[in-house]
Amino acid sequence: MVNTTTFRVRFSEVDTMRIVWHGNYLKYFEDGRDAWGAQYGIDFLQVYEEHGLLAPLVSTDLKFKYPLRYGDSGLIETTFIDSVAAKAIFRYRIFDEHRTQLKVEGETVQVFTDMDYNLQLYTPAFFEEWKRKHGLR
Amino acid sequence: MVNTTTFRVRFSEVDTMRIVWHGNYLKYFEDGRDAWGAQYGIDFLQVYEEHGLLAPLVSTDLKFKYPLRYGDSGLIETTFIDSVAAKAIFRYRIFDEHRTQLKVEGETVQVFTDMDYNLQLYTPAFFEEWKRKHGLR
Amino acid sequence: MVNTTTFRVRFSEVDTMRIVWHGNYLKYFEDGRDAWGAQYGIDFLQVYEEHGLLAPLVSTDLKFKYPLRYGDSGLIETTFIDSVAAKAIFRYRIFDEHRTQLKVEGETVQVFTDMDYNLQLYTPAFFEEWKRKHGLR
Amino acid sequence: MVNTTTFRVRFSEVDTMRIVWHGNYLKYFEDGRDAWGAQYGIDFLQVYEEHGLLAPLVSTDLKFKYPLRYGDSGLIETTFIDSVAAKAIFRYRIFDEHRTQLKVEGETVQVFTDMDYNLQLYTPAFFEEWKRKHGLR
Repeated sequence: MVNTTTFRVRFSEVDTMRIVWHGNYLKYFEDGRDAWGAQYGIDFLQVYEEHGLLAPLVSTDLKFKYPLRYGDSGLIETTFIDSVAAKAIFRYRIFDEHRTQLKVEGETVQVFTDMDYNLQLYTPAFFEEWKRKHGLR
Repeated sequence: MVNTTTFRVRFSEVDTMRIVWHGNYLKYFEDGRDAWGAQYGIDFLQVYEEHGLLAPLVSTDLKFKYPLRYGDSGLIETTFIDSVAAKAIFRYRIFDEHRTQLKVEGETVQVFTDMDYNLQLYTPAFFEEWKRKHGLR
Repeated sequence: MVNTTTFRVRFSEVDTMRIVWHGNYLKYFEDGRDAWGAQYGIDFLQVYEEHGLLAPLVSTDLKFKYPLRYGDSGLIETTFIDSVAAKAIFRYRIFDEHRTQLKVEGETVQVFTDMDYNLQLYTPAFFEEWKRKHGLR
Repeated sequence: MVNTTTFRVRFSEVDTMRIVWHGNYLKYFEDGRDAWGAQYGIDFLQVYEEHGLLAPLVSTDLKFKYPLRYGDSGLIETTFIDSVAAKAIFRYRIFDEHRTQLKVEGETVQVFTDMDYNLQLYTPAFFEEWKRKHGLR
C-alpha cells in the first residue's frame, strides 16, 4: 500500500547552508501521509472528529543522504507497514522529482489515544475494519 | 504598559541570506505578547479555557529595518495600545540585545470571538475588568 | 500582471485554535511570489546568483478576514504593483479553492541590496530591462 | 560532557491536539546543541567561517513519551557521544522544567563536509585538537 506524491521546497524551508533544514523533512513526511490517507481512505482528522481518537507519533527516524534545495521539486513515496500492534507505521522515501536519487528516508510510528491521551491498547474498531477491507491482518 | 523581554535567534529561523526569515519575527512578537501578558496578568490561554473566548489576529504589519542573524540575541519591547473598540492592540519594537539599533517594528490587532469564531462586538467582561483595574478606559 | 496558484494547508501550519497560524500566511505569499516569478520570468534566486543582488523584504502587512483550516486548499492571487522606486511591490489575495470567499489579503515590499546588504538606490539594470520588456515604466 | 539548558514552548509550536508538533522538538535539540557548544567551546558557525566546513545531519531519531504543551518550560540535557569516526554524535533528553518526567529523547549524527558537501573522511584538525584538549580519544 504505497502512495507517491510531490511537493516543492519553499524558500522558508531552506537554511543558511542553502539546503532544506532537516526538521522540515517531517513536513514532507506529513504531506506523504496525507496523500496516502486520501488514496486509501483513512482521514486521521475524521478519526478524531468521529471517533474521538488521536494518533500522535511515538517515534520517528530519518536518514539524510542528499540534500534538497530551494526550488527543487521532491517526490515522496509513503508505504504503510502492517503490524498486529495497535499502531500505524509508515515508511517514507524522498527522491528528486525524476526519482533518480534517494535523498531522505525515514519511518514514523503512531499510536491511538483518546482525547485525554490515554493509550488505546487494542487496535481501534474503525482501523480493524479498514484493515479487513484491504485484506490486511 | 510596556514589557521588555529577550530571545535568541535559532539556526532554523535563519534563511539562505543568513538573516532571520521575515515571517519568524511574528514568533518574536508572540514571545513579547506572552511576556507582556505574564507581567500584566492577561493569559489568553486562560481566557480561552475559562471564558470560551479566542483572540485571533485580524491584522498585522511589520517594518524590517536591519536584520537579526543566527546566534544574535534580540530584545523585544511590547506596548499595549488602549482602545475603546473590542480589540487588543499591541506595538512591538525589536532591538539588538544592547538596545542600540531598532531592527524591526510592527503592530498586531486581535479581536475576541467565541469558539465558533463569532465576533464579540463588545469588549468582553474579563477584559473590561482588567482595564478598569489598570486605570484604562 | 497577476498570477494565480494554489496550495494546501498542512497539519503543521495549523494552531491550537484549529486555524492556520497567522505567520504561516507569509509562506503562502511566498508560494504566490514564486509562481508569479515563474510565470513572468523573474527568478530572485537567479538574480542573487547572477547579479549578486538580494531582495529582502522591508515591510509587509496582512489582514485576516476568514481562517483557513487543516486540509483546506487555498488559492492565492499575486499582483505586481509597478513603482518608479527601486522596489518590488506585490499584493496578495488568498481565497478558498473555489474563490468564493476572500480569506486573507496583504502586501510585501522588497528592495534590492548587494551581498553586504547595502541598499541599491537605483532600480537594478536586470529589473529595468525586465520592466521595459513587459511595457512597464 | 553534558549541558543542560531550558526553553519555553511557543504558541506557534503547538498543533491542533494542543501539544508540541513533533518536528519542533528538533528545534529544541538545536537549542541544546548550541548551549552545549557555548559551554564546551565548539561553535559550528565559526567552524564554517574559519575552516570552510559544514556539519550537516546525516541521521536523527526521536522517541516521544509525553507531550509538552503551550506555555510549558522544558529542560534539555545534551550529551556529546565520543566516537572514533569523523562524526559529531549528540544524545538529548527533554524533561519538564523540574526534571520530574522524561518527555522526549533522541539522537543526532553530524558529519563534516566542505562547502560543496564533499564528505570529510577524517576527523577535521580543529575537532581532533578540541577532543585532545578535552581528553577524548
